Amino acid sequence: MKIVALAGGVGGAKLAYGLASELQPGDLTVIVNTADDFQHLGLHISPDLDTVCYTLAGMANPATGWGRRNESWNFMAALGRLGGPGWFRIGDADLATHVERTRRIGRGDPLSTIVREFCHSWGVQHSVLPMTDSAVATIVQSHEGDLDFQEYFVHRKCEPKVRGFKFLGIESARPAPGVADALADADAIVICPSNPLVSIAPILGIPGVRNLVARGWAVAVSPIVGGRAIRGPAAKMYAELGIEPSALSIAVQYRDIARGLVIDRSDASLQSEVVGIGLRVLVTQTLMRTLRDRRRLARDVLDFIRAELG
Amino acid sequence: MKIVALAGGVGGAKLAYGLASELQPGDLTVIVNTADDFQHLGLHISPDLDTVCYTLAGMANPATGWGRRNESWNFMAALGRLGGPGWFRIGDADLATHVERTRRIGRGDPLSTIVREFCHSWGVQHSVLPMTDSAVATIVQSHEGDLDFQEYFVHRKCEPKVRGFKFLGIESARPAPGVADALADADAIVICPSNPLVSIAPILGIPGVRNLVARGWAVAVSPIVGGRAIRGPAAKMYAELGIEPSALSIAVQYRDIARGLVIDRSDASLQSEVVGIGLRVLVTQTLMRTLRDRRRLARDVLDFIRAELG
Repeated sequence: MKIVALAGGVGGAKLAYGLASELQPGDLTVIVNTADDFQHLGLHISPDLDTVCYTLAGMANPATGWGRRNESWNFMAALGRLGGPGWFRIGDADLATHVERTRRIGRGDPLSTIVREFCHSWGVQHSVLPMTDSAVATIVQSHEGDLDFQEYFVHRKCEPKVRGFKFLGIESARPAPGVADALADADAIVICPSNPLVSIAPILGIPGVRNLVARGWAVAVSPIVGGRAIRGPAAKMYAELGIEPSALSIAVQYRDIARGLVIDRSDASLQSEVVGIGLRVLVTQTLMRTLRDRRRLARDVLDFIRAELG
Repeated sequence: MKIVALAGGVGGAKLAYGLASELQPGDLTVIVNTADDFQHLGLHISPDLDTVCYTLAGMANPATGWGRRNESWNFMAALGRLGGPGWFRIGDADLATHVERTRRIGRGDPLSTIVREFCHSWGVQHSVLPMTDSAVATIVQSHEGDLDFQEYFVHRKCEPKVRGFKFLGIESARPAPGVADALADADAIVICPSNPLVSIAPILGIPGVRNLVARGWAVAVSPIVGGRAIRGPAAKMYAELGIEPSALSIAVQYRDIARGLVIDRSDASLQSEVVGIGLRVLVTQTLMRTLRDRRRLARDVLDFIRAELG
């Protein structure tokens, strides 16, 4: 069974890890948001890609979800002494990823090629693709004006109230090599429990991708559990946009492209409403606190797909 | 007594440290070669400037002369795993200097401003000036063709035979702010025991600088002792250019701009010949193995200047 997973950062990476544990290399392709990529300190930084790759490689920092385990911080300390910006934390080993990626982009290598070779270096056996090799930039339209995504997300800690989002460059972006093929060939597509507004929306917004997902058999895992985001600002964003943060809102958001929704046991009471808007439902434990949780949720999702696909 | 020192990397930095120990802030300006600056990993790297600044700040690695003490190497290890170039070694804390300098050059700050502020951050109280804010690049004309300086110096370990040197951009370079004033105001100019061909020559080659040095009272410290370079490829270069590597050749090279030459005790037999070509001579111990050696040589040079200036 060939599976494509759509993922943003930490939450998506966890389920991608579970799926990678349950599927053979060649049967899983993870397509990752790059709209939160940004230039910082002159470096091209791809937060979601790195989180997914580090997680699949077993190199991720288990305490933070982002960055690398066993990391040292001498670069940041020395940068701070020089008065350089400290709001985006880059560990010494993590920095090599950004410097080498920036160097290779500078000489003309596509991001997708760089990611493939980085994954090979790190021993990641499953396929990880950026959604696009084109530059796409998430802009948070806030009550304080437009903010670059990392400025909003990291520097301002998601504090400004959001009014909407723009993905600059997305109309002219093209799916990265392999993205369209993987989606067209997939037996099923798993929309990971990443932020639908800023992690999944840009992937779906790449011209052609939404149709390929809708034509496939997609199942989403709700990132909202009991009215709260498992991680990150999704629930806060929904509330600020006037949408009730609930698994039901996730169902509404994905109803046109997904066939099924996976919701947490604590949201079991919403099951009939989700069914009512036309989605099949799996109720299970969706929180992933341990590596075992990731594998268990991946198995539940794959079993659900197999059962529904018949 | 106001002193200007002209310096390249490690050898020059040692005497600059000695001079800084003996002179009040405000009485010493160190003008540093930047012709071996280069772009690497997308970063603007200034090897000689960093060596001088780290040395004056007491932050230099005493084992290597370059880089920082108590350095960690996790960036290089991670870069190596990604297949990135490893021939130019950058420690984790050192990397902050390059990243922040590159960021600030990118936003339009002159190198001289950046160096001044870095020195302030590091507690360097004496004035350190790059020779120029313009881009100048040393090209080593070798029997294998033209090589960028760091390619020759670090990657190829000075192995290709040299035929000459070019300093690209030097005709249109301007002295950095403060350089001409410091030279014009100096009571004496100390040409540190740096490589005359690739460290001092570019400083003197900045339009206007050679005349200012010649009009001042300059004393050079020979980097050749007993026919060998104290450090680096100077003796090898002289030999490949068909010039005998000796303190006498240093005297010939500097005779038009210097009034005096400091030579090592082991070269005392050359004293009369150096005098014969018109330079005053100080014979002393010029090797600097310890911090005490640096201060002692600086005192000897300053005493020599005072005695000769009367």
